[in-house]
Amino acid sequence: MADLRWPGDHRAGDLFTDTELIGDMLRVETAWLAALTAVGVAPAQAAVVDIENLVGSIDPDEIAVQAEAGGNPVIPLLAVVRDRLADDHPVAARWLHRGLTSQDTLDTAIVLGLRRCVGSVLELIDDQVTALVGLAEEHRSTVMAGRTLTQHAVPITFGLKAAQWLQGILDARDDLRDARDRLPAQFGGAAGTLAGPGLLLQLTGGTGDAISLTRVAADRLGLPWAPPWHTARAPITRVADALTRTTDAWGRAARDVLVLARPEIAELAEPVESGRGGSSTMPHKVNPILSVLIRRAALTAPGHAAQLHLAAADSVDERADGAWHTEWSTIATLGRHTVTAASQTAELLTGLHVDTGRMARLVDSAGSTLLAEQRSFAGFIGTTTDDFDPAHYLGSSDAIIDVILERARSGGSR
Amino acid sequence: MADLRWPGDHRAGDLFTDTELIGDMLRVETAWLAALTAVGVAPAQAAVVDIENLVGSIDPDEIAVQAEAGGNPVIPLLAVVRDRLADDHPVAARWLHRGLTSQDTLDTAIVLGLRRCVGSVLELIDDQVTALVGLAEEHRSTVMAGRTLTQHAVPITFGLKAAQWLQGILDARDDLRDARDRLPAQFGGAAGTLAGPGLLLQLTGGTGDAISLTRVAADRLGLPWAPPWHTARAPITRVADALTRTTDAWGRAARDVLVLARPEIAELAEPVESGRGGSSTMPHKVNPILSVLIRRAALTAPGHAAQLHLAAADSVDERADGAWHTEWSTIATLGRHTVTAASQTAELLTGLHVDTGRMARLVDSAGSTLLAEQRSFAGFIGTTTDDFDPAHYLGSSDAIIDVILERARSGGSR
Amino acid sequence: MADLRWPGDHRAGDLFTDTELIGDMLRVETAWLAALTAVGVAPAQAAVVDIENLVGSIDPDEIAVQAEAGGNPVIPLLAVVRDRLADDHPVAARWLHRGLTSQDTLDTAIVLGLRRCVGSVLELIDDQVTALVGLAEEHRSTVMAGRTLTQHAVPITFGLKAAQWLQGILDARDDLRDARDRLPAQFGGAAGTLAGPGLLLQLTGGTGDAISLTRVAADRLGLPWAPPWHTARAPITRVADALTRTTDAWGRAARDVLVLARPEIAELAEPVESGRGGSSTMPHKVNPILSVLIRRAALTAPGHAAQLHLAAADSVDERADGAWHTEWSTIATLGRHTVTAASQTAELLTGLHVDTGRMARLVDSAGSTLLAEQRSFAGFIGTTTDDFDPAHYLGSSDAIIDVILERARSGGSR
Amino acid sequence: MADLRWPGDHRAGDLFTDTELIGDMLRVETAWLAALTAVGVAPAQAAVVDIENLVGSIDPDEIAVQAEAGGNPVIPLLAVVRDRLADDHPVAARWLHRGLTSQDTLDTAIVLGLRRCVGSVLELIDDQVTALVGLAEEHRSTVMAGRTLTQHAVPITFGLKAAQWLQGILDARDDLRDARDRLPAQFGGAAGTLAGPGLLLQLTGGTGDAISLTRVAADRLGLPWAPPWHTARAPITRVADALTRTTDAWGRAARDVLVLARPEIAELAEPVESGRGGSSTMPHKVNPILSVLIRRAALTAPGHAAQLHLAAADSVDERADGAWHTEWSTIATLGRHTVTAASQTAELLTGLHVDTGRMARLVDSAGSTLLAEQRSFAGFIGTTTDDFDPAHYLGSSDAIIDVILERARSGGSR
Repeated sequence: MADLRWPGDHRAGDLFTDTELIGDMLRVETAWLAALTAVGVAPAQAAVVDIENLVGSIDPDEIAVQAEAGGNPVIPLLAVVRDRLADDHPVAARWLHRGLTSQDTLDTAIVLGLRRCVGSVLELIDDQVTALVGLAEEHRSTVMAGRTLTQHAVPITFGLKAAQWLQGILDARDDLRDARDRLPAQFGGAAGTLAGPGLLLQLTGGTGDAISLTRVAADRLGLPWAPPWHTARAPITRVADALTRTTDAWGRAARDVLVLARPEIAELAEPVESGRGGSSTMPHKVNPILSVLIRRAALTAPGHAAQLHLAAADSVDERADGAWHTEWSTIATLGRHTVTAASQTAELLTGLHVDTGRMARLVDSAGSTLLAEQRSFAGFIGTTTDDFDPAHYLGSSDAIIDVILERARSGGSR
Repeated sequence: MADLRWPGDHRAGDLFTDTELIGDMLRVETAWLAALTAVGVAPAQAAVVDIENLVGSIDPDEIAVQAEAGGNPVIPLLAVVRDRLADDHPVAARWLHRGLTSQDTLDTAIVLGLRRCVGSVLELIDDQVTALVGLAEEHRSTVMAGRTLTQHAVPITFGLKAAQWLQGILDARDDLRDARDRLPAQFGGAAGTLAGPGLLLQLTGGTGDAISLTRVAADRLGLPWAPPWHTARAPITRVADALTRTTDAWGRAARDVLVLARPEIAELAEPVESGRGGSSTMPHKVNPILSVLIRRAALTAPGHAAQLHLAAADSVDERADGAWHTEWSTIATLGRHTVTAASQTAELLTGLHVDTGRMARLVDSAGSTLLAEQRSFAGFIGTTTDDFDPAHYLGSSDAIIDVILERARSGGSR
Repeated sequence: MADLRWPGDHRAGDLFTDTELIGDMLRVETAWLAALTAVGVAPAQAAVVDIENLVGSIDPDEIAVQAEAGGNPVIPLLAVVRDRLADDHPVAARWLHRGLTSQDTLDTAIVLGLRRCVGSVLELIDDQVTALVGLAEEHRSTVMAGRTLTQHAVPITFGLKAAQWLQGILDARDDLRDARDRLPAQFGGAAGTLAGPGLLLQLTGGTGDAISLTRVAADRLGLPWAPPWHTARAPITRVADALTRTTDAWGRAARDVLVLARPEIAELAEPVESGRGGSSTMPHKVNPILSVLIRRAALTAPGHAAQLHLAAADSVDERADGAWHTEWSTIATLGRHTVTAASQTAELLTGLHVDTGRMARLVDSAGSTLLAEQRSFAGFIGTTTDDFDPAHYLGSSDAIIDVILERARSGGSR
Repeated sequence: MADLRWPGDHRAGDLFTDTELIGDMLRVETAWLAALTAVGVAPAQAAVVDIENLVGSIDPDEIAVQAEAGGNPVIPLLAVVRDRLADDHPVAARWLHRGLTSQDTLDTAIVLGLRRCVGSVLELIDDQVTALVGLAEEHRSTVMAGRTLTQHAVPITFGLKAAQWLQGILDARDDLRDARDRLPAQFGGAAGTLAGPGLLLQLTGGTGDAISLTRVAADRLGLPWAPPWHTARAPITRVADALTRTTDAWGRAARDVLVLARPEIAELAEPVESGRGGSSTMPHKVNPILSVLIRRAALTAPGHAAQLHLAAADSVDERADGAWHTEWSTIATLGRHTVTAASQTAELLTGLHVDTGRMARLVDSAGSTLLAEQRSFAGFIGTTTDDFDPAHYLGSSDAIIDVILERARSGGSR
């Protein structure tokens, strides 16, 4: 899959595709059947190993069309699955989804997708961290103009700039890990009471209680357990916020590249790849297209996260009347876009071209301006020396870089 | 196409699909070749009638993957088209896209999609207007409880409620028509100067100037002409605002239905269709699913429109460095969701079940409360009558309904 | 009033201050009393000329604190006014607000504020248009580098750039005028039925019907009449969209200035004013602070407009249960910020410094790149001349400028 | 202070007022002077104990007006302070702010405000938790109708509903604590290099390095230290996300109250207070006004948080060109609104009236519907009993409540 309207989208592979979602929903149903069997509610024949393989290919479009009647794709999916299991696995067909509600299946499937998504982002962040640690080390002494409000300020080093990009990414990495680890399975039954599972246990004499049953199902999926969260949506918003914090950090770096790759500045350049950055009419163009596309993600992620917060805030009753339904598409879009940007940012940072000569020449020519604060301080103290030198104005940059690199190397723990 | 994560999405048909977008981009290129030929810039052989048919099927995924290098789908699409035209239509292949820039092709293609989208919405609004005119007429005298801040207020009629839903839709209809009619073709060339077309005219001795050339191309596409608007994005935001004003109006009606269809109130019910409103575990459920899905669109449209405004505000230079790239996916999502909601709302309003008995019984039982204002006014004036009756408290409702119906019948002109 | 957290806010004067809002609410109540008297519902003594002057100063903080109990400021304001009128104007005190609901008073007061706000913006836009018409004329032949995706593209003129900024502003001006003219008074009574006014007419034998009574009141305020729009919020969202379209246009120009005022480019500079653009530590700094502050408004307006659309979409019953309450603060913030940015943009454009020498030198040095498309076209046609010149590549710019200037001069009609 | 357009705003007291901000900026400058003195950079006379007291009252409006020239309030504030200190504390006046940049002062002042704000919210959350623990315990056996998609689903207990509201609040509490504890002081100097402080140390022979100097200053303010985060804005967005997660949780509870307090349902009622919930025209009205006002905050917080993410994503250079400037007002609005809603929610939950009789009567009358799933399961298993009872369908609710209460009592650790 590749979205024609979001160039680079193929980098997100199968994440959050319709097919993946169907697969994840079937994995949830498989785990549930296994759990029902494990605790003695359903007979052994109900525990099929892998519904997905048994039922064969399912046309997402067909499910999608039928999804409107009930307002979600679980109901028509179950109908297809029951039908296909009926002949060879009648017991599984009978017990399928028994005790669950649509939201259990869909929320847990989305959690599976989100964990995979965050996992991909974290892997690509590892590459980004490696690249930025390298840039920070290599350019500890590469003096360049610092800029504030677009104007020349005081000297900085490019190493420090890279370290500050890194700082934003490390902040995001902390939050991504935390949010991922707190994404639980959703098993609540019709109204979040677990009454259905409880009744099944009671009627069949199964082992344990409804909570222990749902713990078994969550374990099968490798997910933490939590009380039903049908209308308490923090697990979702927490991931969305963390993903957005990540695109914030990348967007900030990309905007720097877009400025510094302007031909009049030309201190940075994107990694060169044949054909990249071209124009449909101007043969000479080499546009900083990775940064353009990364910035695009950074401009849109905040809106998606806000949408998920709104869904959380508009929840009502034991299942919301529209808010929940806004989440699925929003999460998928935010997720794919973030993975795409993660990959583009890793590529950008790994291959970034730093023109130290341009940086040095600008510092030379703008030196007087860049050292205005230094001169002002010397005058204030009453120093008579006129030995002003950008390099003498950078002593603390190294120490700041060290703090950030130490954090990067320690695995990003806070 | 049907989005598994947005039940009802199939109602939007092919609008804004990748395939439609490719077709529209080819229509733009076809019109441009025709215009170049018409003014004598390109030889007659360049004017192929319909590139789309000539080049055959194009795989959107392939174009999408290649779109990343240049940051937009036009560049790889042109490469494929040139290649396929080369043998049989070498002159067309040579002249293809000559004088245009990617943004011309993509913006104009999106305009074609948007006009089709707004057209569909307006057609479905016609059905909504018909339904609401009918409901307002039929229920002029159907007294029900008015509610403010969730509590009983004074009596209203259901006819007035329908008329007020209609008022919101008529407001939106005005704006949709206006926004659609002001969606122009985009022909600006590399940096919005029309220099390329101008140079071609000069070098070939073609007729007229660059503006007249682009007017020819716009005419071919049935679009109004405007000065290049590569970085002045009002045509886009105006449509997005109008679409959002439309979902606002539907959302407001849907939220009323969601309240009034609660079993404790039950004054309204959605049209019944076999299988609709079902649950995956509760056999009795008949959920007001159309309203749930319409509300979903109303909760998300404002965010999409805001995103397009942000893109407009972040424009820079002669083509933006990321902002423009956020538009394409946002427009498509907003557009499909709005058409889907338009269709669902038409169905909802056309088949809405009004339980006048329930309304009357509630008015009876809540009568004392509902007439508190009336009694207070009578006391204030010093009237001694105790003849309080909800029906006597509704005289102006009819007149308000008449004003709104008159506007609906007059075609919605302001 | 001046918001410490929004530098420049004092440019918005008293617009949307608490004091102004109280004054407007009193003007609405004054008009209503006058209308009640005019149609013979209330006795002549009820028609006081100007409640605001009669009741004297009212402490907004006191009203604000008491506003929580009923959820809006109208209720405590009326209590204060009734109390102060009681002795000298007992009839007016008795008839005050009779037939209205809080939302009538507050919505109409907000409409008065919004019309004043849009009026201020339109006046400042006149200055902007004058400045841009001047810049477009003066710099018709000022060749500069066109830039797309941050890189040099083809030559443009600064006159064309100014004209394209102007185009965005003209688009916004159309929409502002239209939205302002469609901002009606709100008179609906308790649940939008006009039952209260109708009953008063009936009980007192007043002249006309409830609609004609509300038309009188609207006329007194100089506002158009419309059917009650308590829950059909298009008048509000339409203004918000138009204001946002305006900040979009300014933000786009400001972002250009921020790029072109970078010291490495330095083709534009902000108007100089002593003390402006300074830094707390770097004595040399001259920051493009007007553009920074304008961009700030452009980045935030879309979110405010989206909030107002959400309020519209979340409306329910005959008065919403929270949505309406989100509007007041959002409108005030959006309104003040827009007027502030209008004033800053007028100042920026009026005093903008254009360094034609820098523009020319860059075109000279980048000439080969800038003419790549031109050479490509010449080669394509087979022209042998090597007389490439940026000025020869700009023929259509003048014509585009003419179209835009014509529109500006014709008063911006579409 | 009390915002007339945001009833209840007085509950936020002085948080984020202009006066508070000035005080906090002065506290930052005081701490910096103390730190400069402590490490031997500035002479002992520079360390004034409390600038705020020394300089006397400062007119925020005056500072606000002057703030426009430099784009932030720090510059004019320093001018006033230097002037007032000059006579009696000339050394302090000389050393004031030396080595800092405006963003250091303003960011750190905002951090002080945010920590106070989050502290207030957490205190009010303690009251909410107490109230909800009490409701969950008291109503463990209070059976009521569960509702999904607005329709009756299966029985729940009101205790479970209270526990699920609590779950959302506990999720938010975790994140609020975490975000508050990670809000560091901002000390970076002109371009985030700490070069100025470093140079001062070097020129004066002070003790330690620039990092240790800034650690001393942070300690004085009771704030954690972090590397300069001028352009890495996670500390800000993390708090905004946590505040929004909190309003999400309250909004979800308030929306439940708004539904369940409808007269047709009437299972819940807001705490009664004389005069609350009144109308300007309908004497009988008792509106659920606390819930209306809480919902208002929940509808607006997501937009504010998104704005702060956008500011983070749009950061550039060593200080952003507009993005940073959007933060101050957004944070203040979000902060005050959240504290107001925190207080209203604490009051709502503490005094919530639960009508167990209404709940029971509805369960009785809707019993057949509510037990449809139960009957379906019994039929599925083949049980012949017809002993269906809502109370028998609630076994797991208690266990879920226990898990959530245990978390509440353990202090909210995850």
